[in-house]
Amino acid sequence: MSKFWNRMINAIEPYTAGEQPKAGQRIIKINTNENPYPPSPKCAEVLRDFDISDLRLYPNTDASGVCDAVARKDNVSPENVFVGNGSDEVLALCWQTFFEKESNTDLKVLIPEISYSFYPVYSSFYDVGTEIIPLKEDLSIDPGDFCGKPNCGIAIANPNAPTSIAMSLYGIRKILESNPDSVVLIDEAYAAFAEGYTTAATLIKEYKNLIVVRTLSKSYGLAGLRLGYAIGDPELIEGLKRARDSFNSYPADRLAQSIGEAAILDTEYYDKTRKAIIRTRTRVINELRKMGFTMPDSSANFIFAKPALPLTAETLYKNLKARGILVRYFNKPKLCEYLRITIGTDPEMDEFLKAVKEEAQNAKNS
Amino acid sequence: MSKFWNRMINAIEPYTAGEQPKAGQRIIKINTNENPYPPSPKCAEVLRDFDISDLRLYPNTDASGVCDAVARKDNVSPENVFVGNGSDEVLALCWQTFFEKESNTDLKVLIPEISYSFYPVYSSFYDVGTEIIPLKEDLSIDPGDFCGKPNCGIAIANPNAPTSIAMSLYGIRKILESNPDSVVLIDEAYAAFAEGYTTAATLIKEYKNLIVVRTLSKSYGLAGLRLGYAIGDPELIEGLKRARDSFNSYPADRLAQSIGEAAILDTEYYDKTRKAIIRTRTRVINELRKMGFTMPDSSANFIFAKPALPLTAETLYKNLKARGILVRYFNKPKLCEYLRITIGTDPEMDEFLKAVKEEAQNAKNS
Repeated sequence: MSKFWNRMINAIEPYTAGEQPKAGQRIIKINTNENPYPPSPKCAEVLRDFDISDLRLYPNTDASGVCDAVARKDNVSPENVFVGNGSDEVLALCWQTFFEKESNTDLKVLIPEISYSFYPVYSSFYDVGTEIIPLKEDLSIDPGDFCGKPNCGIAIANPNAPTSIAMSLYGIRKILESNPDSVVLIDEAYAAFAEGYTTAATLIKEYKNLIVVRTLSKSYGLAGLRLGYAIGDPELIEGLKRARDSFNSYPADRLAQSIGEAAILDTEYYDKTRKAIIRTRTRVINELRKMGFTMPDSSANFIFAKPALPLTAETLYKNLKARGILVRYFNKPKLCEYLRITIGTDPEMDEFLKAVKEEAQNAKNS
Repeated sequence: MSKFWNRMINAIEPYTAGEQPKAGQRIIKINTNENPYPPSPKCAEVLRDFDISDLRLYPNTDASGVCDAVARKDNVSPENVFVGNGSDEVLALCWQTFFEKESNTDLKVLIPEISYSFYPVYSSFYDVGTEIIPLKEDLSIDPGDFCGKPNCGIAIANPNAPTSIAMSLYGIRKILESNPDSVVLIDEAYAAFAEGYTTAATLIKEYKNLIVVRTLSKSYGLAGLRLGYAIGDPELIEGLKRARDSFNSYPADRLAQSIGEAAILDTEYYDKTRKAIIRTRTRVINELRKMGFTMPDSSANFIFAKPALPLTAETLYKNLKARGILVRYFNKPKLCEYLRITIGTDPEMDEFLKAVKEEAQNAKNS
C-alpha cells in the first residue's frame, strides 16, 4: 500500500511468474515451460552478422520482417499479423483493445476457471469485468459453456494451461459462431506441441471476430528474446496497432526482429525440436502412469500430473526442489493436487523420473 | 471505427512518431532525435560474446544488471531503479501506477502545453484527466505554474521537447515541495545534452514523490534496442513493478539487458559522444542565427528553430525532404512556425546548412 499508487495498483494482485534460479546454479529447470533446446542455428548467424551501429536507429514499428515470416509460415497476409514484446504484451493489448471496461458495459469477458493465470490480472489492470466459466470434471473445456452467454469478449488458451488439454477446431468454430459480436481470443502459446492440431489461424478469413495469439518463447526456444504475435482480420490488427501507438510505438527491438524472423523461417529446425519434445513427453507420461500418477494426455510442452498417494504434489514439489529439480506447484484450490512439469531433454527427464521414483518409495516407507 | 474495438480505442488519437525512411534510402535523418554515433564498442563485444542458447530461458524480470549499472553511474541503490522496454513503456507504466483515473477523482494530471506529445495519449489510454499548463512567451516552463494547483500528478520533460529548453533544479525542487502528495515525473530523455545540468535523480532521497525517467535511445545511441528506466524512492519503484507484473513480467530481453549494461558502464564513450553532439549543436545554432533563424538555446540533441520570413517552416520542411533531408515538422498551432532538427554528425549538418542557405535564397528570390 502506498499513497503514491493509484487505487488500481493498490488493489491489484499481480501475476506471479515461476521461480528463476540464480545464474550459475546447477539445476534442472522444468518449471516455466521453456524449451530445452537452443534456438535455431540461423539465429546464431543473425547475431554474428548483426551490425551494432544499426541499433542507433529506431526499429520498424510493425516488425515487418517478422510479419512477413509469420505470413509465409501460416499462409496469411502480413496485414493479418501484429507483433509485440512477448505474447504477454500482445495479450494485454488485446484486453485493452477488444474488451470493454466494466464502467461502460454490463458485459464481462468470459475466461475458463483454470487457465493462464495472467488473464484475470489483465482484467483488473484494464478494468474489465470477468466471468469465470467452470471446467468439466475431466479438466477439459466444454465449448457449449461459452455459447449463449452475453459477454464483451472471450479468451481461451488452447491447448489450455496448466491442464495441457486442447480443444478441437470444431469447438472453436462453435464458440465463434455463437458470439459474432465479441472478439474471441485463442491463445496458442502451446499449439506447436499438440499432435494433429490445426491452428485456429486457418479460420481468420471465415471469422472476423477471431484473434489468435502465439509466442516464440516455447516452440522456438526464445523465451529470453520476448517476441509474440497475433493473427486476425486486418480490422482487429488495426485496433491492436492503435493500442500499441498509445502505449509504446516500438515494442520489438531490432535484434529481436532479426532473430525472430530467422527462427520462424527455419521450419525444419522448428519441426525437429518440437517433435523431439513430443517424443520425450510420451515417454515421461508412460513412466509416470506406471508409477500410479494420473494426468490428462498432453498437447503442450508440459504435463499436468497428480502423484499417487501417499505422495502429495506439495511434498514432491518441495523434495524435488531440495534435489535441484524445479517444477511448478500452484498453491490454489483444484490445482494444488497437481504439478505442472515442463518437458526437458531426455537426460533431464531421466534424472527427474529417477528422483520421482525415489520420492514415491520414500513416501510409502514413511 | 470498428464494432470490435472498445470505446477508448475507437476514440483515441494515437501518438504519431516521426517518419522512418525505408532501408537502403540514402537520407540525412535528423527528424527523430537519434544519436548520429554508433553505440559504445563495448556493446559490440557483448554481441560477439553472446551465447545464443541463453535466449532459451526467460530473462531476469528486474534487469538487475542494468539496475546495478544505473545505480553505479547515478550514485543510487539498485532498489531505486526500474527498467522497461524503452522509456515510452516506463512513462506509460508511470501513468498507469501513479496518476488516478478520472472516474475515481476530480483531480487531473498537470502537463505542459507543449511537451512530449505522447503524454496526453497516455492520459486517454489510462483514463486520466489532463490539465494543460501554458508555457511562457519564450516557450519556457514557469515552475510556479505547477504550484498551488490541485492535481493527481505532474509530468514534465526536462529538458522539454520540442522546445529544447531546460528548467533548473531549483524550479524542480519548488514543484516537488509544493506537491508533496502527488508524484512528480521528470522525463530526462535529453538531459545528457544539457550543459551544466544536474540530474533530478540527485533529489530522490529528499523527495519521496519524485520519479525520474531516462532512455538509452538518445544519449547511448540505442534507439533500436528499446531500453529505458526510472529512478525514484523504492516505494515508487515497487509500484511500477506491480504494474509491470500485471502487464508483461519480462519487459527487457536478454540481449537488451546485456548490451544496455555495457553501454551504461562505458562512461568515457558516453561523455565523448554527447560532447561531440553539443559542439556540433553550438556551431549549427550560430550558423542558423546568422541566417536570421530564431531559436532558444538548446539543452537537447536537437534544436527548435524558426526560419526567417519569407521562408516558412512548412516550406523548408517540404523542400528539405525533397532533397533527402528529413527534419520534424509539427502541423499544430504554435509549433507550426518551428522545425525540430536533430543534431547529426558534422558532415550531415554541413550538408543541412548548405541546403538551408539555398532554400533561404530561393525564398527571397521567388
